[in-house]
Amino acid sequence: MLTGSFSLTTTSQMELIAISEKIHALIQKNSVSSGICYLFNPHTTAGLTINEGADPDVGDDLIKGLLHMVPSNLDYKHFEGNSPAHIMSSLVGSSLIVHIADGKPQLGTWQKIFFCEFDGPRTRKVHWKIVE
Amino acid sequence: MLTGSFSLTTTSQMELIAISEKIHALIQKNSVSSGICYLFNPHTTAGLTINEGADPDVGDDLIKGLLHMVPSNLDYKHFEGNSPAHIMSSLVGSSLIVHIADGKPQLGTWQKIFFCEFDGPRTRKVHWKIVE
Amino acid sequence: MLTGSFSLTTTSQMELIAISEKIHALIQKNSVSSGICYLFNPHTTAGLTINEGADPDVGDDLIKGLLHMVPSNLDYKHFEGNSPAHIMSSLVGSSLIVHIADGKPQLGTWQKIFFCEFDGPRTRKVHWKIVE
Repeated sequence: MLTGSFSLTTTSQMELIAISEKIHALIQKNSVSSGICYLFNPHTTAGLTINEGADPDVGDDLIKGLLHMVPSNLDYKHFEGNSPAHIMSSLVGSSLIVHIADGKPQLGTWQKIFFCEFDGPRTRKVHWKIVE
Repeated sequence: MLTGSFSLTTTSQMELIAISEKIHALIQKNSVSSGICYLFNPHTTAGLTINEGADPDVGDDLIKGLLHMVPSNLDYKHFEGNSPAHIMSSLVGSSLIVHIADGKPQLGTWQKIFFCEFDGPRTRKVHWKIVE
Repeated sequence: MLTGSFSLTTTSQMELIAISEKIHALIQKNSVSSGICYLFNPHTTAGLTINEGADPDVGDDLIKGLLHMVPSNLDYKHFEGNSPAHIMSSLVGSSLIVHIADGKPQLGTWQKIFFCEFDGPRTRKVHWKIVE
């Protein structure tokens, strides 16, 4: 099982950062033609998701939807004041499975893999493992 | 690692289609007794989930809940007008892990595996891989 | 592939129960230094998530957020009256991937693995598999 981590820097409080190219590059670097890539986000106010990457408006609308669903003020108890970001993390999820075929992520035509920042800007990490 | 894809046709704008029998059949066809089945939905306005399959009202209530949480009109920017379906896709998730035991999906008594259509009707695909 | 199950008892209608120590213990018991642990919840009114475990208020706020997002009364059809719990199960998800490094779950500083009870109290099960 191949394993590693990479870092990324977010620049806004909430944003989606496409990491498909990073994943494609590490699949190529390790000469993997077929298998599964497991991504894991070790942060509790961030997440990983797959969605449309052709139109960046989709990511903005996802953030808009999450901000609507998870109110900024709901008599939360957590002292740091970032409970909405923690809730969004559990809604979107902290890990992803990406199938690998023909030496690249087996994504649909419009899909990209996104790191979701919900409480930035920060420096973040993603752990990955690949099983051939 | 065994790998493949299957198609399915949805007939409504939003619906849950049980695919447990399809997964069971491909496990049997490949004579797998124990392992993990990884399902991946390559579409950005659909998802995969596991929930109660005995009473079809549960699936209808899930759709009702999602329609309540994700408003149809929220000043979305995406020009195609289907942002709610994209948001639901990230909420439910695009992939699933199904444990395999005794030659079948190791599901709970009431669980079924569902393909979630959020922007149909369409012809859809599901990619699968099985590790023994 | 190592495989097994464990039980846990919940004591409230809705609660998050940390199971990181249980997962750490079974990794150690099986002398696994590196790999992936796959957790699966076979119940349709419960889930699995990873979030902050240092401050228990975060779990309480997650429950508060879910109760806000998923109304208790929405003209649901399911006769058992626990549709909100089913909806939360699909939002949070029924399975988890946990990377293993250095003989333990490769979690972030603040992360813990949680079993989410949405319709308790009940006795619940978690199925696990480990690939080295």
